[in-house]
This record gives sequence, C-alpha cells and structure tokens, in this order.
Amino acid sequence: LKLLQDRILKEGKVFPGNILKVDSFLNHQLDPNFIKEIGAELARRFSDQKITKIVTIEASGIAVAIMTGLELNVPVIFAKKHKSANMGSGIFNTTVKSYTRNTEFVVSLSKEYLNADDKVLIIDDFLAVGQAALGLVDIVRQSGASLTGIGIVIEKGFMDGGKLLRQQGIRVESLSVIKSFQDNQVIFED
Amino acid sequence: LKLLQDRILKEGKVFPGNILKVDSFLNHQLDPNFIKEIGAELARRFSDQKITKIVTIEASGIAVAIMTGLELNVPVIFAKKHKSANMGSGIFNTTVKSYTRNTEFVVSLSKEYLNADDKVLIIDDFLAVGQAALGLVDIVRQSGASLTGIGIVIEKGFMDGGKLLRQQGIRVESLSVIKSFQDNQVIFED
Repeated sequence: LKLLQDRILKEGKVFPGNILKVDSFLNHQLDPNFIKEIGAELARRFSDQKITKIVTIEASGIAVAIMTGLELNVPVIFAKKHKSANMGSGIFNTTVKSYTRNTEFVVSLSKEYLNADDKVLIIDDFLAVGQAALGLVDIVRQSGASLTGIGIVIEKGFMDGGKLLRQQGIRVESLSVIKSFQDNQVIFED
Repeated sequence: LKLLQDRILKEGKVFPGNILKVDSFLNHQLDPNFIKEIGAELARRFSDQKITKIVTIEASGIAVAIMTGLELNVPVIFAKKHKSANMGSGIFNTTVKSYTRNTEFVVSLSKEYLNADDKVLIIDDFLAVGQAALGLVDIVRQSGASLTGIGIVIEKGFMDGGKLLRQQGIRVESLSVIKSFQDNQVIFED
C-alpha cells in the first residue's frame, strides 16, 4: 500500500536489532484518518469472505482492528495479555513467547465471544517472528471457529512469522512487507 | 446518553465490589459502530474547544479515543503502562496506584508528541477512583499543554474520581453516570 510505505519511509525510525518504530502514527500516537484507510484496505482484501468476527491483541492492534471492523460491520475482540493463565472454564488461554523481552506471557479470550459458527479475521499491527499471531490462531482453533486469514499492517519479510503461518495454509495479507534494513533505511519487497 | 444507558442495562454485568463489566461492547469485545457513536458524542461535547490532541491510556481507552479523534480530526496518543519508570529524558512518567489490584504502575508518554502549544482532551472508558485520569492530567501538566477537559464513557458517580477532578476545575463530561448498584442492577443518576 503506497500511502503506508511512504509514511513508514518518512516517519519510521530504525534502531539496532532490526527494530522499526512507527510511534508517530501507529504504536504510540495514532492518526485516526490514516488508520481508518488502513482498516478499509484490510477489509477490502477480505471482502470476499463472510467474516463475522475480528480478533486482535492488546494494545497496538486495537486501533487498526476497530477500523477494519467498522468497515466490515462486525464486532472486534481484543485478546488480553496476562502474566499467568486466567483460571476458569469460560476462557481460552494460550502461551506466547516474547523474543524481544525473552519472557512468556499468556493470551486470553472469553469463550462468550467466539464460537464454532464464527468466521474470523485476525488483525495485528506487526508480524515478525509470528508468536502473537500463532497464539491468536491457536485461540481461534480452540473455539472451533473458521479462520479466514490474517491482516497485518507491517510484516518483517526477513523474519519467519509470515512463512510459519503461510506454511499452515493460512492466508496472510500484509499491507507492507519489509525486505531488509540497510543503513537505517527501510527496503520494501515489491 | 440514552443508547449507552440502554446498552449498559441490557448487557452490563454487575459483580460484588461494585464491579461493572461491559465486556460485550467496550472492554473485551468492541462494537465499532456503537463506539463510533460514543466517540462522536464526546467530540460534540468538546466541539467548542480547539482541541489539537487526544490523550488516553492503553488498552481499553484506545477504541473510544480513536473514534473521538476521527470525529475531531486530531491525533490520539495512548499512554503506556509499565512496571517501572521508563528511563531517558524523552519521556513523561507518572506513577498511578491501582486500587483494584493493590499495586502501582508507571504511565509514560513520549515528549515528542505533546508540547506547550497543544490543547488536550483526555478520553477514558471508565472513571472510578480517578487514579488513571489524575495520572494523565499530571502528564499533560508536565508537558505544559492546556487541558481542555476529560471525556468519560462510564463514571461511577458514587466514587471519588469525578469529584477530585472537578474540584481542580477540570471539566469532566461523562456520557453515563452510575448512581449505585442495587440488587445487581445499575441505577443511573437522573
């Protein structure tokens, strides 16, 4: 998506360790109109599916997911992060590894809002090693719902997340795919 | 706001300790069109002000804040929660007590996105003891920006948060104010 690539090139900041910060419009400060366009494009790419629910993860997935949900006119559920498993029979839990912080956390979602009749679109801001996305896929599978695909704003194409998901036959649509970082500059795949 | 009160009465769940859960449309599952209406109403109430930035706190403030920002056509900054102060000179930090969890956490916001020229509207989903809102007020004051007011979706009118903020001369607009809980039912003011 051209307007996204332009904005990443203009405002993104590259840090050692292949870190890209887009805090000015996506991860700390949010540009509502821009994120609405991002959401509309993700919705467009999955408009051939009869999606009934969007699933994302707190916190920075929420803004993009609600704009996608606004366009598709479906509810959005944001999974919550916890230090330990949330007890009780009413909750789906899955464990996610954080490579950047070298820790594990638990992702949970209430069984009340997801069931076998749902057709789910997973939305997230970044896809890198794919642990968060794989966690959400696991929760969708636990619920018995159909997984329609995954919509991502920025994929780090040089990391394994996208490959791991696509190898499972999951449709992954990324609005921008980064090929590499060279001299603190972002190089996109076309 | 009538449509909000109706939805709270229909879907809200009251638990011991004056806990109200509205997980079906605001705090876990989100109804995008409904939250867009909420955001539009908050925007309308502050439309007489020349707001330049909206400030909220992760995670459940984000959805309402971005819809308010969409209507007012201004950027939204979501403050982040941490276990300890975020070092570095580029960040505003403030400490917030959590009464429900009996802990403290640090709220941070990058100095890059807030300055003395800004006119800020703080948005949050709930107002109870007011600690989160007071933390955001403290950050806005550190930045030198003008605080225009605070927009809240659900205020627990029987708790001190609203009083503490209004005593400081801060304009607080709450779309619904709960007077009490009686027999697990929500009673609104007027």
